[in-house]
Amino acid sequence: METLTYLPFWNKLTKMQQEALTASAREFTYQKGSLLHNGSLDCVGLFLVKQGQLRVFTISEEGKELTLYRLFERDICLLSASCIIRGLQFDVMVSAEEDTKVLHIPTAVYQKLMEESIIVANYTNELMASHFSEVMWLMDQIMNKKLDTRIAAFLMEESDLRGETKLLLTHEQIANHLGSVREVVTRMLKHFQNDGLLKLGRGSIELLDVERLNKLASDSLR
Amino acid sequence: METLTYLPFWNKLTKMQQEALTASAREFTYQKGSLLHNGSLDCVGLFLVKQGQLRVFTISEEGKELTLYRLFERDICLLSASCIIRGLQFDVMVSAEEDTKVLHIPTAVYQKLMEESIIVANYTNELMASHFSEVMWLMDQIMNKKLDTRIAAFLMEESDLRGETKLLLTHEQIANHLGSVREVVTRMLKHFQNDGLLKLGRGSIELLDVERLNKLASDSLR
Repeated sequence: METLTYLPFWNKLTKMQQEALTASAREFTYQKGSLLHNGSLDCVGLFLVKQGQLRVFTISEEGKELTLYRLFERDICLLSASCIIRGLQFDVMVSAEEDTKVLHIPTAVYQKLMEESIIVANYTNELMASHFSEVMWLMDQIMNKKLDTRIAAFLMEESDLRGETKLLLTHEQIANHLGSVREVVTRMLKHFQNDGLLKLGRGSIELLDVERLNKLASDSLR
Repeated sequence: METLTYLPFWNKLTKMQQEALTASAREFTYQKGSLLHNGSLDCVGLFLVKQGQLRVFTISEEGKELTLYRLFERDICLLSASCIIRGLQFDVMVSAEEDTKVLHIPTAVYQKLMEESIIVANYTNELMASHFSEVMWLMDQIMNKKLDTRIAAFLMEESDLRGETKLLLTHEQIANHLGSVREVVTRMLKHFQNDGLLKLGRGSIELLDVERLNKLASDSLR
């Protein structure tokens, strides 16, 4: 249960509060690709990522996905407990992008803490603000950056995360991250290939000119 | 200072807290078009809208605006005090869309309340969640709805707010609300005009077929 100490407020809780958390938290392992949270259908609670990688995304009525942000080791998934916060009126999905170990904190336990402790209440505020900020960054990308730049940034991020330049990724998957459609992504990737930036394989993309891709990607950060 | 009772937690504050708020809050009137808050340059504090209408928007490096949401009587503007919340890392602008009377609460006074009162801390959470939700709704619109639908929805909203079918609005203003550019909006409005939905004048738009506009607009709410 040492994962609980990832909570920045852990040391500021009372003995009793620490014990309540310890007694209710459970460790789970989710296989790559599995869903931890499914929109408004559930309010499962918070997840502390112990190991692995989660993806928080939305899905439109037509089935189009858009990655909002990712969560890594020591990150906390709050929106899977959205019912805790009045006024939160949108649905997200959370899936494991790798085999992922999480510590699960039940909704009711966390809610009680928020009502008892100013520190927990204000920390929750901070956590939501950081997710809000990531979404605002994404909004700026979508409104103001071109897709070529966004694809390059996504490929470089993937390559950094995996430590590889050959990425096992379908065009569909890229489209799902960027809120685009497969056809548009395919067109752009072929353009990149003609340009010598990468090489397309069956279900894979090999990055050839990392320097130029990085330069293109960095245009999305300006 | 009765405007302070708009704060949902007013009755749950201590006498001392109420007095501190009363002593520090000031009423201001902003003329239509004036700026109340200018991104990261200031952290002016919260505004309670007493009368009028505020617009909260972002502005890209290239100067493209996008309306995030609007605030009306009894609404509270939190993002103008963004420095209160750690983790909030984006800038917004706030302007008066009408002559607007607000009650201003200084940053330091509100921050002290958040640190003292669980109720205020959790209410702030709720307030941020509702703004976050509006931005997520907007994101869905941008990603998944066509511009014709969004323009129709915007015109109908304006018409409802003003109680008029002849709107004094430039194409530039509409573009600024929707994060688009003037040329694209003009093209769509001309298309609407040819379709008999509205009539374009010099700096004005007269809605002719409110029923069909409403139908088109309601596609954005599905």
